[in-house]
Amino acid sequence: MILTVTLNTALDVTYTVADLVPHGHHRVSEVLERPGGKGVNVARVLAALGHPTVVTGFAGGRTGTVVRELLAPLGPHDALIPVAGETRRTVTVVERSTGRVTRLDEPGPEVGPDEWAALLRTYDALLGEATAVALCGSLPPGIHVGAYAELVRRARAAGTPVLLDTGGEPLRRGMAARPDLAKPNADELARLTGSREPLRAARDARRRGARSVVASLGADGLIAATEAGTWRAAPPSAVRGNATGAGDSAVAGLLSGLAEGLSWPDRLARAVALSAATVLAPAAGEFDADAYAELLPRVTVEPLAPEL
Amino acid sequence: MILTVTLNTALDVTYTVADLVPHGHHRVSEVLERPGGKGVNVARVLAALGHPTVVTGFAGGRTGTVVRELLAPLGPHDALIPVAGETRRTVTVVERSTGRVTRLDEPGPEVGPDEWAALLRTYDALLGEATAVALCGSLPPGIHVGAYAELVRRARAAGTPVLLDTGGEPLRRGMAARPDLAKPNADELARLTGSREPLRAARDARRRGARSVVASLGADGLIAATEAGTWRAAPPSAVRGNATGAGDSAVAGLLSGLAEGLSWPDRLARAVALSAATVLAPAAGEFDADAYAELLPRVTVEPLAPEL
Repeated sequence: MILTVTLNTALDVTYTVADLVPHGHHRVSEVLERPGGKGVNVARVLAALGHPTVVTGFAGGRTGTVVRELLAPLGPHDALIPVAGETRRTVTVVERSTGRVTRLDEPGPEVGPDEWAALLRTYDALLGEATAVALCGSLPPGIHVGAYAELVRRARAAGTPVLLDTGGEPLRRGMAARPDLAKPNADELARLTGSREPLRAARDARRRGARSVVASLGADGLIAATEAGTWRAAPPSAVRGNATGAGDSAVAGLLSGLAEGLSWPDRLARAVALSAATVLAPAAGEFDADAYAELLPRVTVEPLAPEL
Repeated sequence: MILTVTLNTALDVTYTVADLVPHGHHRVSEVLERPGGKGVNVARVLAALGHPTVVTGFAGGRTGTVVRELLAPLGPHDALIPVAGETRRTVTVVERSTGRVTRLDEPGPEVGPDEWAALLRTYDALLGEATAVALCGSLPPGIHVGAYAELVRRARAAGTPVLLDTGGEPLRRGMAARPDLAKPNADELARLTGSREPLRAARDARRRGARSVVASLGADGLIAATEAGTWRAAPPSAVRGNATGAGDSAVAGLLSGLAEGLSWPDRLARAVALSAATVLAPAAGEFDADAYAELLPRVTVEPLAPEL
């Protein structure tokens, strides 16, 4: 099975309004709720691709209960650790006219040392069965900034390939613990390396410790710097839609390709096709299976010149 | 006891953000949740004033459960009718810098005929014990537009004084059933009568069926057209703050004054002082008890010339 870790799970609430007007009074025409947090999104896509998947992380309070209830029928096995605090909601307000989104993220629950210790026990136990593990998203309050570095080290000690998808200081610290793969987006990569030139920045990021770096560049696809080579992978044409969850679908593509022993170019093609099929799906964070099948053979994966 | 009816109860969620930027990504620094819907707000203020109060209306789904859990410790007795649909949330986004608010209201639950019949049974049973009843707020989907007219007629048949606080077509229909008191705000009054001149509009509204009409004019206080006379009541100075729930506090002032047999000028003074003390309270929909005590003797109630 594939394990995903979401320390800051969420109930993702999507509101559709005509237009968002500051200081206005809006009637929400549609309300959607789904279990969220990056690792949960990754797990849902993995489950939809047919991979046995286990989700761990924290869930607490009334919102945590709702997250678990909504997760139950979706496929991933729930190994979330109960916490005393309240799991956060994220509210995405979608404008019907333009499709543009405004995000409001609640703070996560304060996680205590005993709760962190319980997570580490569960994590260690699950690592033994996992073919790969993904560490995804932000840290809730109370979790130390080196938490991902600790989880990377434990995965490496267990011999389980580990992917890190986070940003800021948790990414910087996590990189130093030498994950097998880091998947920053363009902004996170620029913040980490100081460079806005993706290839240069991805290579720089590799030197900071990750064995491979795959950076998601939005509509431009992915750039990968690995020990086997460097590639740019791009969809056949720019896709328009709701990009929520597109990066998480890319992580699911990379992980499932790793678990299936695919080559790097095939993993990247899958990641780009899943990502684009997520942007095209009407519901945020879902992927359109027909679009995925149609896009997959049309993704271009181009090797880049080796570093001089 | 005083009965309040809230057909469209809500979980009122308040988010504090630095500034609300359309298409931006916001960290919510503070999350507050309270049971809401106008009649619930009225009942909370009545309970705080020491009046035994019963709340009926509809509550359903996970959010309905939260509303009932949060209502339990607050004083009003819970006689809400369970429904299959999901009670709505309202999200109020408050900007830390300016205090300005943006509202997002979910739609209410679809209420079926059996659920409406259950409400009528409970309502009729409670009317017999009530010294007054308030019918407050919007109608959820599935409830016919003449619902308040029906509830007004039943209150009149039971000999229970009935206050109506709603807008649009439900107000127009309800007025025709001759409630003892209608409390529209300035916008609702203008929509009902076509006049933006409050005194003229309040008198016109009386002719549409309500025995008395008290219109809330925001920072300008109240105007009352009754069978005993016409008054303007105003706070000693304009108050600044979050006006959420100010109109509901005015309703609580009017109802409690009625139940205690106060004169019209005293009822109006109480309503204005409670309303201003609600604007001054830090939490939306609460009233500041010290501000209320300080403001009450300083409210001006001025009789207006009789209609020619």
